[in-house]
Amino acid sequence: VAAGPSRLGEGAEFDLIRRFLAEPSDAAAAATAGGVLVGPGDDAAVLADGTVVSTDLTIEGVHFRRSWLAPEELGWRACAAALSDLAAMAARPLGVLASIAVPAGERTLAVPIMAGLRAAADAAGAALLGGDTSRSPGPIFLDVTVLGHAPRPVLRSGARPGDTLWVTGRLGGAAAAVAAWLAGGEPDAEARVAFARPVPRLREALWLAERGVPTAMLDLSDGLAGDSGHLAAASGVRVVLDSGRVPLHPAAGKRRDLALGGGEDYELCFTAGPGAAEAVRAAFTAAYGIELTQVGRVEAGSGVWRMTADGGLEPMDRGGHDHFESEGE
Amino acid sequence: VAAGPSRLGEGAEFDLIRRFLAEPSDAAAAATAGGVLVGPGDDAAVLADGTVVSTDLTIEGVHFRRSWLAPEELGWRACAAALSDLAAMAARPLGVLASIAVPAGERTLAVPIMAGLRAAADAAGAALLGGDTSRSPGPIFLDVTVLGHAPRPVLRSGARPGDTLWVTGRLGGAAAAVAAWLAGGEPDAEARVAFARPVPRLREALWLAERGVPTAMLDLSDGLAGDSGHLAAASGVRVVLDSGRVPLHPAAGKRRDLALGGGEDYELCFTAGPGAAEAVRAAFTAAYGIELTQVGRVEAGSGVWRMTADGGLEPMDRGGHDHFESEGE
Repeated sequence: VAAGPSRLGEGAEFDLIRRFLAEPSDAAAAATAGGVLVGPGDDAAVLADGTVVSTDLTIEGVHFRRSWLAPEELGWRACAAALSDLAAMAARPLGVLASIAVPAGERTLAVPIMAGLRAAADAAGAALLGGDTSRSPGPIFLDVTVLGHAPRPVLRSGARPGDTLWVTGRLGGAAAAVAAWLAGGEPDAEARVAFARPVPRLREALWLAERGVPTAMLDLSDGLAGDSGHLAAASGVRVVLDSGRVPLHPAAGKRRDLALGGGEDYELCFTAGPGAAEAVRAAFTAAYGIELTQVGRVEAGSGVWRMTADGGLEPMDRGGHDHFESEGE
Repeated sequence: VAAGPSRLGEGAEFDLIRRFLAEPSDAAAAATAGGVLVGPGDDAAVLADGTVVSTDLTIEGVHFRRSWLAPEELGWRACAAALSDLAAMAARPLGVLASIAVPAGERTLAVPIMAGLRAAADAAGAALLGGDTSRSPGPIFLDVTVLGHAPRPVLRSGARPGDTLWVTGRLGGAAAAVAAWLAGGEPDAEARVAFARPVPRLREALWLAERGVPTAMLDLSDGLAGDSGHLAAASGVRVVLDSGRVPLHPAAGKRRDLALGGGEDYELCFTAGPGAAEAVRAAFTAAYGIELTQVGRVEAGSGVWRMTADGGLEPMDRGGHDHFESEGE
């Protein structure tokens, strides 16, 4: 249930759909009473028994170009992106369903795509439960549904004033690859891997949640500026980013905009009560070989703000973009 | 987890994908041990706790044409088709996730599509749990994932020699509509409704399963000939169809081929032990206003056979077709 940088965009019509998804119907209200803990609007839905479910679209010409990815990588990436929504909820992966449509003349493409998808599911300990297949009269189309289990899911809505804001790993690698491709070049190997073979932070999220660290969490699919905006809106708080502290992926060089506005890093972004993340930071890095970095704080208010050089605050441009939006496809 | 008449087809490559989905991986094997009762290959997957999940693709130019359906009908039909996979397992619907991609210039289309989808979910008592949205650089894509619960799911694999074969309702209505459109005409109102507003047989399936009637069951998405072949293969039996007894939808007129080979009726097809279906037939019709009709029997062997006029048997053409396969799209 993600809204990545390359999704429909922020038009009025799309807001309508969002509202539609968020507005409870009679059946939804009954279901909430009877079995749905978390409905639309978080990274994934959660049923009363702790079942977590989410679905994630990947479309050729919107989320990737054919020339960017080998078919196995496309399958891996689509599945990893969907699994990342389970990580965002601190859910243990259980199964994956894959719907795939490929052009009629290229049916063989489905085999390596499915192999990559399956490899990502295997790596996460998730079973391939099924799916659907069709020819496509247009682009390659992949929709991956993931099922998991979270006895205590971490929502987007739990951040409170006084919390600190953290990210795992380093940001901007995938965006650096996209930027290189869009400029007509080839990304360097590290950037390419960040885009083509993201690894969802499933174990990391469980580890943090088992220690009660995150008060709110999501995965970075829109970019830090946009995603911390989602967290702020869901929690009813203001997020203040200290952009100078954002850990840059080596491939992003000094381009802080790629880390703030570029999406698809699939790192975790979470808030924590005073001292909670600091207390586990060293153990986390020892366990997983990546850093936890504080990138901001939570205050009363709304929206995403950035600290200025003189110690003031200014509203943050949300960033996030559609790679191809301007091409009029 | 359906394979409708308009899906990829029966080529060698597609068999490969099917095998891929069916072949257990290490993770799948672990999951089977740890939580998956039914993996790929049935109408839906079933987890150990009785959670049933399935996903169903609907693509413009493959499964429908824009001129055939109003956007609300498209949403309804896509959701009903997915819910029908829950009926096939005798599962109670719980929730629906919808992934939808529409052309960038027609974003408003997503609103009525989603409204129709939601109406079908509401009618089934299923909550809209979430989804994903994107623009499409090509046709309209819809992928609907359904979640339900079946303490005792009815599989495709339970048919035994001596069982009888039954269907609910009348067959061939949706195929009559497609035939009219493909011939350049307009279907009559009953045929159009059969295609545009199918009603998944959810309550009917639960009713039958609660009485222990079906030994094996699926929903008719490929057509009776093709779908009874799936049932025969899963159960390791031969199905003998008495095609003269197949109940024809009024819109199908005398075209028995539409009932046998045409898909998307979303009626139930099930096998039952001797006398079991006969015993509940009148009560079923009293409860739901539709008939249960015996259309064949189960024998030792394999494949689908048809009784000939002289009382012999001949192998049945599986029927099932891709509406647009020959157009080379």
